[in-house]
Amino acid sequence: MKAAVWHGRQDVRVQEVSDPPLPPPGQLQVEVAYCGICGTDLHEYVGGPLYIPVAAPHPLTGVRAPIIMGHEMSGRVVAVGEGVEGFSAGDRVAACPIVGCLECRWCKSGSMAQCDKVAFLGTSWTGGAFAERVNLHAYQCYHLPDALSDEVAAMVEPFASTARAVLRGEVGAEDSVAIVGAGPIGLMSLMAAVIRGAKRVVAVEMAARRIELAKQCGATAVINPKCEDPLQRARELTNGDGFDVVVECAGQQDTGLLAARLTRTRGRLIVMGVFEKPAPLDFTDLVFREKTVMGSMSGYGYFDESIAMMSDERFHGNTLITGHIRLDDLVEKGFRPLLTEKDKHVKILVSPR
Amino acid sequence: MKAAVWHGRQDVRVQEVSDPPLPPPGQLQVEVAYCGICGTDLHEYVGGPLYIPVAAPHPLTGVRAPIIMGHEMSGRVVAVGEGVEGFSAGDRVAACPIVGCLECRWCKSGSMAQCDKVAFLGTSWTGGAFAERVNLHAYQCYHLPDALSDEVAAMVEPFASTARAVLRGEVGAEDSVAIVGAGPIGLMSLMAAVIRGAKRVVAVEMAARRIELAKQCGATAVINPKCEDPLQRARELTNGDGFDVVVECAGQQDTGLLAARLTRTRGRLIVMGVFEKPAPLDFTDLVFREKTVMGSMSGYGYFDESIAMMSDERFHGNTLITGHIRLDDLVEKGFRPLLTEKDKHVKILVSPR
Repeated sequence: MKAAVWHGRQDVRVQEVSDPPLPPPGQLQVEVAYCGICGTDLHEYVGGPLYIPVAAPHPLTGVRAPIIMGHEMSGRVVAVGEGVEGFSAGDRVAACPIVGCLECRWCKSGSMAQCDKVAFLGTSWTGGAFAERVNLHAYQCYHLPDALSDEVAAMVEPFASTARAVLRGEVGAEDSVAIVGAGPIGLMSLMAAVIRGAKRVVAVEMAARRIELAKQCGATAVINPKCEDPLQRARELTNGDGFDVVVECAGQQDTGLLAARLTRTRGRLIVMGVFEKPAPLDFTDLVFREKTVMGSMSGYGYFDESIAMMSDERFHGNTLITGHIRLDDLVEKGFRPLLTEKDKHVKILVSPR
Repeated sequence: MKAAVWHGRQDVRVQEVSDPPLPPPGQLQVEVAYCGICGTDLHEYVGGPLYIPVAAPHPLTGVRAPIIMGHEMSGRVVAVGEGVEGFSAGDRVAACPIVGCLECRWCKSGSMAQCDKVAFLGTSWTGGAFAERVNLHAYQCYHLPDALSDEVAAMVEPFASTARAVLRGEVGAEDSVAIVGAGPIGLMSLMAAVIRGAKRVVAVEMAARRIELAKQCGATAVINPKCEDPLQRARELTNGDGFDVVVECAGQQDTGLLAARLTRTRGRLIVMGVFEKPAPLDFTDLVFREKTVMGSMSGYGYFDESIAMMSDERFHGNTLITGHIRLDDLVEKGFRPLLTEKDKHVKILVSPR
């Protein structure tokens, strides 16, 4: 079959590889419908290896580069391994990329994403979803309702991480929420907050195209730090308080500091952005106003809830899809435009056929 | 009566002032036994005004400089205002410095320390505890058990802020706790964690005298970043995990970053240190390891529990008292040595008589 294989930094090749074997016990074989391109794919391509094992085999899965990439996938079950219950050939599924050891305290306490030996689909698993087919543990797979198209379902994984972040921030109906950075994760966080019923969801963004998208995704207002003092505007929008919950999705050198300052006394800042290096935080403001900052990474454990949220009419999935490409064009029409014209794109979906 | 009055930066005078009037309804008059010198007193002296209103009267209390300083107090009730229940002349009390408007959403939800118009004993109240007597709201006063001496009871207020921080960090019997910085707040946090039953409480400190005090206060180990790699040593002490809870009490430019890195995956960092300016934090580590950082300031609401904890034999109150001085000597024998020989002192108590 055809697959996109990471061989080294800036060396990703779409090539013929062996078909995956019949799924072993506990696993399913899934024919990939769509796989979205994630920021971490770009990091692996441009600056990797980050999570791809190269020097030594992965401690849990035993794999190492070359590795098939891709993890934001939807697809259809084509074969069912021994002992799997609840799945049949033909079932439409989305997948969670997390593979755990099932033995450590994290796996045993429902936090597989923190597993001591955690592996990920697309960086350290036996296959990846930039391919025609992939074997997955049954526990990684989640049934899709008819209402969710294959295209939109390819966003279950990134949406689940934002939905979990918003749920961890305890966003409720009385809350004013700010989303710092309206890229793919920011826009999904925005919709997650809207669907959770927050009374006010404000995007903080400077790029014109993203500001437009934020409005389409349900932002009640947009703060543009290029044109106005964001703290002053935040006070105007929140009766002087600041935001109850802020979700940081930008990962720029000064956006952590800004996001914390936008947060009200006793409020919660959820950080999802990936920062290149340590960045400043106003610890004294954190102390005097007793704010809480929480890092949030994966959507593990929130897939079913996220799938239900994505069936809400306020989830504008198609708005986020700014490109459909074929697997052969992954680098030229996928990675490159996302790297060079970042603000023009949100989610580019790759079809393996 | 005699009192220490803040007139301006580096201008604190011990002088004769009018006696406080008979306590108005709802208030008590307390004769001060001891008042400890707090870091914020030093900040007001050296670099103030920080909280002392100068240009305009305080919105709640109407006071402005000159202001009587001091808030870490123990004393004895000498007069009881109309309508006060539960207190009689002769009762020994400690005081919470927080005065709220009783009307805003914070006051109404048990978070008076976050009151929109909050006032503090010693910076924006009608009196201060570096004085012979002070009027206080009855709700600010907490009964003291016989077992707690007047000297040790002067530390109820700072201890309550550390006890609350440790309780907010949900320190339990299975937890390994690190305290970054073994000054007064660090040492009290350390004892609070010990009394909460943490299985391991480790101080991170470089000054020899403070390392010694940390051991006397119950530290199971000390990490000295001057002599060893603190992250490596933390892993050795915690079976490779990092600390379940870290309490940052140093407020130096790099101690926030260090404290967060010492925290394990999904662990809690409580920040109490006051930082001069924004300082670096490794946000990406926060995200990937899903850590939580909480600012914690006051001990409001935790005074009775703190007084009970201080009666525990593991509270080495006398170890913390490194000086007794008279009010007349506040600047020369109190502020100055704390500013110039910081590492030699923990708590200096001031007697107004």
